Amino acid sequence: MIEVEVKAKINSFEEMEEKLAEIGATKTKKEFQEDIYFNSPVVDFAKTDEALRIRTTKENDEENIFITYKGPKINKEAKTRKEIEMGIENAQECSDIFEAIGFKKVRAVRKNRQYYSYEDFEISLDDVEGLDPYMEIEIGLNDGEDYTEAQNSIFELFEKLGITDGFERTSYLELLETFNIN
Amino acid sequence: MIEVEVKAKINSFEEMEEKLAEIGATKTKKEFQEDIYFNSPVVDFAKTDEALRIRTTKENDEENIFITYKGPKINKEAKTRKEIEMGIENAQECSDIFEAIGFKKVRAVRKNRQYYSYEDFEISLDDVEGLDPYMEIEIGLNDGEDYTEAQNSIFELFEKLGITDGFERTSYLELLETFNIN
Repeated sequence: MIEVEVKAKINSFEEMEEKLAEIGATKTKKEFQEDIYFNSPVVDFAKTDEALRIRTTKENDEENIFITYKGPKINKEAKTRKEIEMGIENAQECSDIFEAIGFKKVRAVRKNRQYYSYEDFEISLDDVEGLDPYMEIEIGLNDGEDYTEAQNSIFELFEKLGITDGFERTSYLELLETFNIN
Repeated sequence: MIEVEVKAKINSFEEMEEKLAEIGATKTKKEFQEDIYFNSPVVDFAKTDEALRIRTTKENDEENIFITYKGPKINKEAKTRKEIEMGIENAQECSDIFEAIGFKKVRAVRKNRQYYSYEDFEISLDDVEGLDPYMEIEIGLNDGEDYTEAQNSIFELFEKLGITDGFERTSYLELLETFNIN
């Protein structure tokens, strides 16, 4: 799967919630996400622009755990990249396996994420521990599909929601690492 | 978890099945297991005596998938080693993730395994594609528990079943690699 995603800093969640309601976006699930990022013993994922993480999501009483690998971004404007995600049984055992085969824990990124659905878009209002409010808009493409159109449609949707600047290509992980927030 | 396991070549499954019945071992599940082994980009697992595999088990219509990491053997007689095993959702996606983070597929090991239970032991009659018949006896220990006693009790059980030689410390993977059987 190829994901095309763009995020931008926003002024407030309340303002954006109103605008999303105005255009008719549907509020879907709200969940807490804890991502534990790992770095490779072979290459520095910060330099190769890859990511390997264990994500634990909590929504009410339901907990789900995934391994996600994200490949390097393949264009500059949006974060367009290969993503492989797979459900797993146990975050601690997975972390133990990653460490046993030479991977190192980088840090955890924790956020409350409110999802919205609108046309083919998935919109997220992200309250990341230690960071300003962000909104992310994403479209999933199948391998081989053209991403330029998808990317343009994402920027059009941002404009419709009144956002024309504040776009951020840096990941939450890197933003936290830059500010060295623990 | 620490697993202590010893395997030995046997003359025939039928003969061993009779002996297992005589001592009162209980036939439990029979399953087909396909293990895909991976090697590390950092070290050669064949040299460091580690293993990373994806195991898919099939028992009637039920399929289960696991990642298993096995640490180096910590003594010479039995295969005593740290093992971490975790259920996962999808073997192909897992294989894609392992390859994306630099691991290389080594080969597949396929077998029909008949499990037996006897006291604290797990006994397996292993019909491995490309190899002679083997029987494996295993005990699981918690971290820190002494393994010498466990190991001795395994050899006593082999003797009880009439097996005093043919012990094999080499893994099925290495045996297949040695004979270069595809």
